[in-house]
Parts: sequence; C-alpha cells; structure tokens
Amino acid sequence: MGVSLGVLAVRHGCELRGDPDRVVERVATLGHADGLSLTFLANSAYRGQLAGTRAGAVILAPADAADCPVDVLVVRDPYVVYARVAAELHPAPATEPGIHPTAAVAPDAVVPGSCQIGPGAVVGRGVVLGERVVLGARTVLGERVAVGAGTRFMPGVTVYPDVRIGARCTLHAGVVLGSDGFGFARERDGSQVKVPQLGGVSVGDDVEIGANTTIDRGAIDDTVIGNGVKLDNQIQVGHNVRIGEHTVIAAQTGISGSTTIGARCTIGGKAGFAGHIVVADDVIIGGGTSVTGSIRVAGVYAGGGTPADELPRWRRNMARFGQLDELAKRVRSLEKRFAGLIPTGQERR
Amino acid sequence: MGVSLGVLAVRHGCELRGDPDRVVERVATLGHADGLSLTFLANSAYRGQLAGTRAGAVILAPADAADCPVDVLVVRDPYVVYARVAAELHPAPATEPGIHPTAAVAPDAVVPGSCQIGPGAVVGRGVVLGERVVLGARTVLGERVAVGAGTRFMPGVTVYPDVRIGARCTLHAGVVLGSDGFGFARERDGSQVKVPQLGGVSVGDDVEIGANTTIDRGAIDDTVIGNGVKLDNQIQVGHNVRIGEHTVIAAQTGISGSTTIGARCTIGGKAGFAGHIVVADDVIIGGGTSVTGSIRVAGVYAGGGTPADELPRWRRNMARFGQLDELAKRVRSLEKRFAGLIPTGQERR
Amino acid sequence: MGVSLGVLAVRHGCELRGDPDRVVERVATLGHADGLSLTFLANSAYRGQLAGTRAGAVILAPADAADCPVDVLVVRDPYVVYARVAAELHPAPATEPGIHPTAAVAPDAVVPGSCQIGPGAVVGRGVVLGERVVLGARTVLGERVAVGAGTRFMPGVTVYPDVRIGARCTLHAGVVLGSDGFGFARERDGSQVKVPQLGGVSVGDDVEIGANTTIDRGAIDDTVIGNGVKLDNQIQVGHNVRIGEHTVIAAQTGISGSTTIGARCTIGGKAGFAGHIVVADDVIIGGGTSVTGSIRVAGVYAGGGTPADELPRWRRNMARFGQLDELAKRVRSLEKRFAGLIPTGQERR
Repeated sequence: MGVSLGVLAVRHGCELRGDPDRVVERVATLGHADGLSLTFLANSAYRGQLAGTRAGAVILAPADAADCPVDVLVVRDPYVVYARVAAELHPAPATEPGIHPTAAVAPDAVVPGSCQIGPGAVVGRGVVLGERVVLGARTVLGERVAVGAGTRFMPGVTVYPDVRIGARCTLHAGVVLGSDGFGFARERDGSQVKVPQLGGVSVGDDVEIGANTTIDRGAIDDTVIGNGVKLDNQIQVGHNVRIGEHTVIAAQTGISGSTTIGARCTIGGKAGFAGHIVVADDVIIGGGTSVTGSIRVAGVYAGGGTPADELPRWRRNMARFGQLDELAKRVRSLEKRFAGLIPTGQERR
Repeated sequence: MGVSLGVLAVRHGCELRGDPDRVVERVATLGHADGLSLTFLANSAYRGQLAGTRAGAVILAPADAADCPVDVLVVRDPYVVYARVAAELHPAPATEPGIHPTAAVAPDAVVPGSCQIGPGAVVGRGVVLGERVVLGARTVLGERVAVGAGTRFMPGVTVYPDVRIGARCTLHAGVVLGSDGFGFARERDGSQVKVPQLGGVSVGDDVEIGANTTIDRGAIDDTVIGNGVKLDNQIQVGHNVRIGEHTVIAAQTGISGSTTIGARCTIGGKAGFAGHIVVADDVIIGGGTSVTGSIRVAGVYAGGGTPADELPRWRRNMARFGQLDELAKRVRSLEKRFAGLIPTGQERR
Repeated sequence: MGVSLGVLAVRHGCELRGDPDRVVERVATLGHADGLSLTFLANSAYRGQLAGTRAGAVILAPADAADCPVDVLVVRDPYVVYARVAAELHPAPATEPGIHPTAAVAPDAVVPGSCQIGPGAVVGRGVVLGERVVLGARTVLGERVAVGAGTRFMPGVTVYPDVRIGARCTLHAGVVLGSDGFGFARERDGSQVKVPQLGGVSVGDDVEIGANTTIDRGAIDDTVIGNGVKLDNQIQVGHNVRIGEHTVIAAQTGISGSTTIGARCTIGGKAGFAGHIVVADDVIIGGGTSVTGSIRVAGVYAGGGTPADELPRWRRNMARFGQLDELAKRVRSLEKRFAGLIPTGQERR
C-alpha cells in the first residue's frame, strides 16, 4: 500500500530532491494529483503546469527540475521510469486459473493448470498453450494454434488455425489473426478465382496488438510480426507482410501484401503502404502518409514518403502551394508587360 | 395499424394539403411508395422524382409543395418529421426481459428484471445495469461497468472494466470500449515499456456508436464522450480524447490521443486528427481532412484543416495546381524571351 | 497424395515441357520450393528467381518459359491455373455436420442436417439456412436471416435481422452485416433525431467479405452487394450503397451512403467515396484515392478521381509541384529583372 520516494529513487536510479520517507500510493496527472499521488513531466510543453501541482512528487528530467514546487525524482528518461512506477503501484489484476464451464476446449488441447479460460472461449484441436495464458471471454483459437507463456487475450479475439503467437503478448478485443489474405485471380470473363491462402501468421514475443486490428495469413509462407512490435487499433496487415522487431505503428494504418517494414520504426496513424515494397530499419513516418515506394535509408519521412533529406524542400513547396493562385497571376502580369514591351515575333532569337 | 394524415399533421405540426382521413401504414422511398406509403423529400436534388410518385402522402418543405401530385404534409424540417413518423410506424421490437440460460452473469451484478440478457452474454463482477438494458448475444461487460436505463448493446460488443455508459445509448456490433490506450515509452535499446492505461471511459446519455468502432480508455483520467454524440462505424478514438455534446462523426475517422473536439461539430468520414489539439464548438470538417493543428473558431474546414475564411483561396490554389505544368512552361518561355532581349549580366541594376 | 504433371497439363489446358510422370504434392514459393513442390511465376518482376528454383515444376506464361531450369506448365493465365491447382492440392477441410451443444438455435429455424453450427453460435427465429452452411464459433444470425447453400461464416460474424446472403459466400471473422446506417436529422437545438433504418442488406452468390468489414442496412430499401464481389478487411459500406458484380475492393476503403459502384471494378486500399455518386462499370481506382464525384466512363483513375485521360497531365503537375519553390523564385527573379529594365508605370500599354 504505497511506496516511499527513497525506495523509488534507489530502485529506478533517480536523484531524489525531497523527503525520502514521503509515501505515494497512486499516479495522477499534474493537474489532478494530491499529496499521495506521484506524477511526471515528460513533455516540456506541459512545464507550465508544474507550478500549480499539489502532487506528492514529480518524476522529471534534469532540465525541468528547478521549476518544481514539490519533491522531485530526477532522471534522464522520466517517461520510462513513470511507466515502471505506474505498473508497480497499479499492478494488473492477478489471473484466476481455471476453465469456465461455458468454454469449449478440445480434448487434445494442451492447457496448463495455470491458464485462465474465460466464459464462452473456444480452444480448437491440437492447440498448445504455455503457462499462465489468459483467454478472455469468447476468444476463439483455431486448430493447432500455439501460444507462448504469459500471453493474454482480451475478449472476442479470433485466431484462425495454424497461427503461432509468442510469450508475454497482449491481444485486444476484436483482433483477428490469420484471416485469408486478399488473393484472387481474374478470369477472362471478369469473375474471380480464389487463390488459396495456405501460409500462417507468426507473432513474436512481447507483441501488443490493438482492438479490431486484422492480420492476414500468408499466401504460401507466413506473415511475420517481430518481437516487441506494438500495433495500435484498427490496423490492417496484408498477407506476407513482415514487420521488424520493436516497430511501433499507430491506429488505422494499412500495410498491403508482401511489404517488409524494418526494425525500430515509428509509424503514425492512418498511414498507407503499397504492396511489395521495403522500408529500412529506424524509419519514422508521419501520420496519414502514403508510402508508395521503398524507403532504403533511416530517417524521418512524411508527405507521401518524401525522403528525410528532401523534407525541407517538400515543406517549402507546400508553402508555395498556398501562394499558387497569386503566383499564376504574377506570371500573367509579366507576360502582359512583356507583350507590351515587345510584340511577340519581334524578339531576337 | 396505420395512421391518418390528419392525426399526423396535428401531432407533428404540419400543414396538411390533402385528405385528413387518408391512412398510411409504412414509409417508402419516393420511387417505391404506393398508396399506403408515406414518403419524404428532404433534399431538393431529388425534387424531379416528385412528379412520378404514387405515395399516399409526402412530407416536404414549403418550397417543394407546389410540385407534388399527391397529398402533402408541409413543414419546415421535413427530415426531422419523417424520422419521427417512421419511428411511429415502424417501432423497434419490444424487449424480451430475462436472462438467457447460456449467459454468464456474476452473482453480485445488479440486473433489473426488465433487462434482456442475450445468449452467451457475459456480465462481470460489480456491474450495475439500469432498467430495460438490452445485452445482445455475446456482449461482454467487464468488472464494475455501469450502464444507464434503456441502453441497448447489439451482439458482440466488448466493454472493458470500469467503463461508464449513460442512458438510452445504442452500441452496435463489434464495438470495443475501454481497450488500452496506445502508450509506450521507448528504452535506449529501442525496445518499449508499456505505460499502464489506468483511466476509464465515460459515455454520456443518448449516444450511438457504430459497428466495430473502438474507444480507448484514458491513460490516467477518463476518455469522455458527451451526451448525444453520434459515432459512425470503424471510428478510432484515442486515450484521453474528449468529444462535446451532440457532435456527429462519420465512418473511419481517427482521433489521436488527448485531442478535444467541441460540441455540435459535424465531421466527415475518414478524417484524421493529430493528438493534443483542440477543435472549437460548431465546427464542420469535410471527409478525408487531416486536421493537424487546433481549430479555434466555428466554421467549415476542409483540405488539411484550412480555416473557413481561407477556403476560397485554397480552392483557387487547387485549381491552379491543375495548371501547374503549363504555368512552369510559361515561366520558362518568359525567361527565354527575356534572355533573348537582354543577355544576363547586362541588365540595369 | 500428389498429382502428376501430365494429369495437371490435361486438366488445366497447359502445354507441358517436362516429365508427365513427375508428381507434385504441394505448392511453394519460387524460393522455397523443393522437388515435390509446384510453384508459379505470374509477375515477370520475379523472373530473376527462376534460375535458382529447385521446384518440381513451375506454372508460367509462354514469354517466361525459356528461362526456366525445371519442368514447366505453360499457359496464358498462370495465376488462374495456379489458384485452381493449389485448391486441388490443398483442399479446404471438410465440414463436420452437426450442431454444437453450446449453440443456441431457435426452434423454428431451418437448419439442414448437412450444416455445421459451431460452439456458441446463435441462430435467431425464422432463420433459413441452405445445405452445408458452416457457422463458425460465436457467429450470430438475427431473426429471419436467409443464407444460401455452401456459405461459410468464420468465427464471430454478426448478422442483423432480415439480411439475405447468397450461396457459396465466405464471411470472415468480425464481419458485421446489417448494422444501422448513419442517419440522423439535426434539430434546431443542435441535438439529433435518429432516422429509423428500415431496409436490409442483400448479398449475392460467391461473395467474399474480409475480417471486420461492416455493411450497413439500407434506410428504406436494401444495401446491395452483387454476385462475385470480393471485399477485403476493414471496409465500410454505408446504407443504400450498391456494388456491381465481380467488383473487387481492397482493405480500409470506405463508401458513403447511396453511392453506386459498377460491375468488374478494381478499387485499391484506403480509397474513399463520397455519398450519392455513381461509378461506372470496369473502373480501376488507385489506393488512397478520394472519389468525390461520379465517374461515368470506364478507365484508370487516381489522384482524387482524376479521369483516366487526364492522368498524364495530373502526373506532370505533381512533378511540377516538386519544383514549386524554385518556380516561385524564378518568377521573382523575372519580376526584378523586368523592373530593372523598365520602371513600372512607364511601360507601353
């Protein structure tokens, strides 16, 4: 029930400026914190709120420490340390091992006694679960799905057959893994023949997948989501896509089939990726960007996949776009003045 | 079984031009209506269809009344009156109180006898339902969820723990309320630490939420959806977003975290909002618009959040864009003619 | 267990260049195929991979046949033939007729003995299923839904009442059919009155609908999806939309209400369609395109619905956009040089 600032400072490598015996019990925002609350300042844009805070203590970076009227825990990465302390003060609810009587578990499925299988969950033939897996209500695991230890499925997730999921993942409500890729061959009469989607999906360890996100199975080989990847809500991942380790993608982004995205990328919301392209490691892509070709070099990209070193030029052009009508009128004026000066056809050539 | 035009005119404040004893039994489109059908004209663009209608009567605005060959109910807001009459002629099916034997209801949940709990529904510990709440098949309410009277959940809705929902709301199939916000702090080694998402979601009264829409819980404080808000399908609402009363948002729009949208706004489909911005009350935003900065003044916005009073300029620039190649050639021509006139370097300065 | 190249050549009308007795057992990619695998080359961009393949045989077009080091099946439409052979070598799992004990089937529903009704499925009153219909786990069919023979529902599909679905369709996990269209009439006080959504949804034969796609019911008449239409994941189809036969639409596209799309169209991902417009048959629309007005003529469209015959011009203008800042500077330079030549006001008029 609460922890002292002295203990937190030692445990998380912070410099404490304040009372080591002060106890905090919960986290709160700068504006709503009281004396038993710990808060943080990770974005200097909110620095103005420091003066008025009544928090027990604030986690912040060295540059922001001087302005704070209450005790501070000073550290270079205040947001990382806040994340750790918040998890310590507000632990996730313990799992409740057991199989709900309304769940339907195939007789040959491997379900350790440490697993929690919720109401209405369905576990297909040949499924193998690791220790402490949690299946939320109504989760469906198709035949031969394999899940690593400690992975948690929120309610209503659907996993098609032959999908492999690593350890310590979190899959949010409504996620669909392993639906058929979108493959059709058009006949000469205009109708379509379905191309069987025979690959699977391979999801690494420590992956989080947001609500209602869909990941298609591969056409022949697997669709692959690397270790530590974080996907937000309502993302669409096409067949045979590969996403590298620790890449983070915001909501409503779509990735067309057979595209490869590198490791440690950060991709904004509502971005769209063409199919069959390659994006390098350590690429940052702005929200809403259409990426229509491969990106071979790490950097910041926006505005249709403009390379980082061309971004200043792209921004200048966008500014000029706002003056385009005026520019056209100036050209017309020049043409008139020129025509007035020397009639066309009489110029020196 | 049907209602007379006279009764409708009195009840809804319309001027009747026609037979007060004529009875209509159902609504229909202008093109498909027969003599027992009531129809409406709300958009003058469809006025040409009036001449051929065989409807029993048409609800329309004064300006359109003269052209109509059949009985008319004349009123300033024909679409509002149509909505009311349609609800009267085609009432929603009555609820069927009771708990389906396949539902899983926690012993301590408060479920009034007037509620309808469908097949496979799951009601967690500490849930409190108001009178006449309807849970469609497979709906899952997490622990401590509170729901106001008369709210209806269509099948397959998932509500995470600690979400509060007001009275008379409708939540469509596949809606997810209270999934974790997308919060991660990047470590120096490129991996991510999850930031616990400890807030809830607060949904007001008379809210409608479309199929497969997702609303994330707040990071610390709540995500807030105001009274009377209407959200279409496949909308994504990030953590700590606030949406003001009676705002209407069309499908596939995404709102990034900590953004505040005002009251009575109308937002088109596939719009995208950056995080941490503020949109004023009474703002209208066109479909597909990227709103990357705050909008402080009521008005009509489109084309990347262009302020209303700059829209004519933006449209002129777009028109010029279509002439850009030609413009560039005209500039080149001017340069050549100028060079022909006076060699560079010999000009007067 | 496997089939000979000679049999395949006869059955699918290919020219075999190789050993008619060679047997293949499975399909594989060019890179991963072994001697018992059949592979294909449909996109000449991958032709470079032919030289290194160790496949038993390759299905390819006449132009690519000369370069192949292994046996080939030569045919004009290699992708169509590959699709057929893959389905032959990897047949879908047989259905397992019967009703799971946890399913809830209304007493008056028509469910032939050849149907497979999965765990937790819900079949409403008045539902009529054709032969061999498969309902995946947790699928919900509302009252009076009608389904044609051989149609398969993956887990977690929700169908609202009064929707009609044809034969041989596949509906993927999380699909919602028949949710209310987004219809509200704004009152003078800014609040909204719901317009009852009284139409249904009519889905033709041989339709495939991707995971988490949503199709709204009509306001009065039906929303209509034609025979052979293929919809990818996370598509939104508004009320009263009509989609013509054999049209194919990629993921995350949104179609606003009352829009009509023709037959045999191909529409890229993340496209957006305004409401109340008409798109002709045989139209191809690029990914991410905003279609804001009707398209009356077959052709290829991109960049905001630019007509096909204007695409070259649109591309030239986009190229010029990349030079806009430089162009503006050149105009400024011309103006200065001109002013240096002849002071303004002294020009001939």
